[in-house]
Amino acid sequence: MPTQPATTAPLANNHISVDCVVMGWDGERLNVLLVSRHSEGEEYRDMKLPGSLIYQDEDLDQAASRVLRELTGVENAGLMQYKAYGSKDRTRDPRDVKWLERAQQAHVERIVTIAYIALVKIDRSTTGCLEGHNALWMPLDGVGTLAFDHNLILSEAIMQMRSMAVADPALLFELLPRKFTLAQMRTLFEIVFGRKVDVRNFHKKVASMSYVVPLDEYQQGVAHRAARFYRFDRKAYNRQRR
Amino acid sequence: MPTQPATTAPLANNHISVDCVVMGWDGERLNVLLVSRHSEGEEYRDMKLPGSLIYQDEDLDQAASRVLRELTGVENAGLMQYKAYGSKDRTRDPRDVKWLERAQQAHVERIVTIAYIALVKIDRSTTGCLEGHNALWMPLDGVGTLAFDHNLILSEAIMQMRSMAVADPALLFELLPRKFTLAQMRTLFEIVFGRKVDVRNFHKKVASMSYVVPLDEYQQGVAHRAARFYRFDRKAYNRQRR
Repeated sequence: MPTQPATTAPLANNHISVDCVVMGWDGERLNVLLVSRHSEGEEYRDMKLPGSLIYQDEDLDQAASRVLRELTGVENAGLMQYKAYGSKDRTRDPRDVKWLERAQQAHVERIVTIAYIALVKIDRSTTGCLEGHNALWMPLDGVGTLAFDHNLILSEAIMQMRSMAVADPALLFELLPRKFTLAQMRTLFEIVFGRKVDVRNFHKKVASMSYVVPLDEYQQGVAHRAARFYRFDRKAYNRQRR
Repeated sequence: MPTQPATTAPLANNHISVDCVVMGWDGERLNVLLVSRHSEGEEYRDMKLPGSLIYQDEDLDQAASRVLRELTGVENAGLMQYKAYGSKDRTRDPRDVKWLERAQQAHVERIVTIAYIALVKIDRSTTGCLEGHNALWMPLDGVGTLAFDHNLILSEAIMQMRSMAVADPALLFELLPRKFTLAQMRTLFEIVFGRKVDVRNFHKKVASMSYVVPLDEYQQGVAHRAARFYRFDRKAYNRQRR
């Protein structure tokens, strides 16, 4: 199975692509969706963000959704454009250029890529679809050297996620499962904001959030003391934020 | 004098451009920097954002600074990339395509443009430089139908300015003159946030901002009661925001 979609529609040109940074939370860690780049007869095999060139008959947003679906099977991730990358050094690595020119069957100089970000839960709908694709969820701390400038794109996506979460904390609740423990919520906040959070202060802060609602349900079958589950109440959130 | 810079360096390709939305405050109104598009023998004459294609040897940010300087004379505006526009309908108007193809001497299909935003004061340094260019400051409410999708780009730049100002109100003080009246400050807030602000509430709010410092100076030679001047104290701002 190809690591790039077959080019069945005319390309707008061979210089504009889209790349998707889909970050997913598995309850414990933040992961990013990567695709494997390898082909017969190549001496290397590495990972990249799901991305490809745009077709002539589609807008940028349409291209991003299509490319993500074709390469990973993930649909309706809520992709949001956040930055274009167009440094002339993007295609500095001759291996990247060789790979691109074979995949695209065209001479490649510079590729300006439009980067998209999406935050999703890792659940059945976002893992089942990966089957049949060369795609996988990679924990952020396990990401090695990616192709092109994809490490830069990823690190700036993390900063983008932070400022989106500062502007609208509701985003973080979209990552959490429908029922979550405060430990899960705290871990997510620590990872997103990149700093340790004091447990006691955190519990105080949550108590002041009318939109984080305790449930009458507790964890089952855990070795440690079973923690309570909470849920996010969007209506209460909108009231408190107004 | 040409409305487009002469193409002296090889173009990266004929499909990627940058466009600059430079918004300036003249003390009373928000203005946007536009360039006039016209050529001998054309039956039309209209306005557009300063923008052009990128050269092969420059990054996107470099291209934006160069294009702004070449078309308007404005330097160091603090341009910030905020969105790429790549709809296939961008070059729907045959007049736009005709104009582009003559200016670029190349066949044009789609142009993806990377949009930049900057907020500046309109003072000697940002008006004197316009001389010798087909550029002018246009009050936002006087902007008519612009070329391409530049009305869309401009309206989204205004939304971008709003969310930047919510995230960091210090931006708004960069628009205001070094010494400003509370009426000027309030007018700017009203325009940026797109809603009326109650005078009394506004004065109360300002009183709680340790970083808006009253001066012992008053307006001179005004028909109405002379208003006091204030200044923005960045150090106090950073302390209060932390």
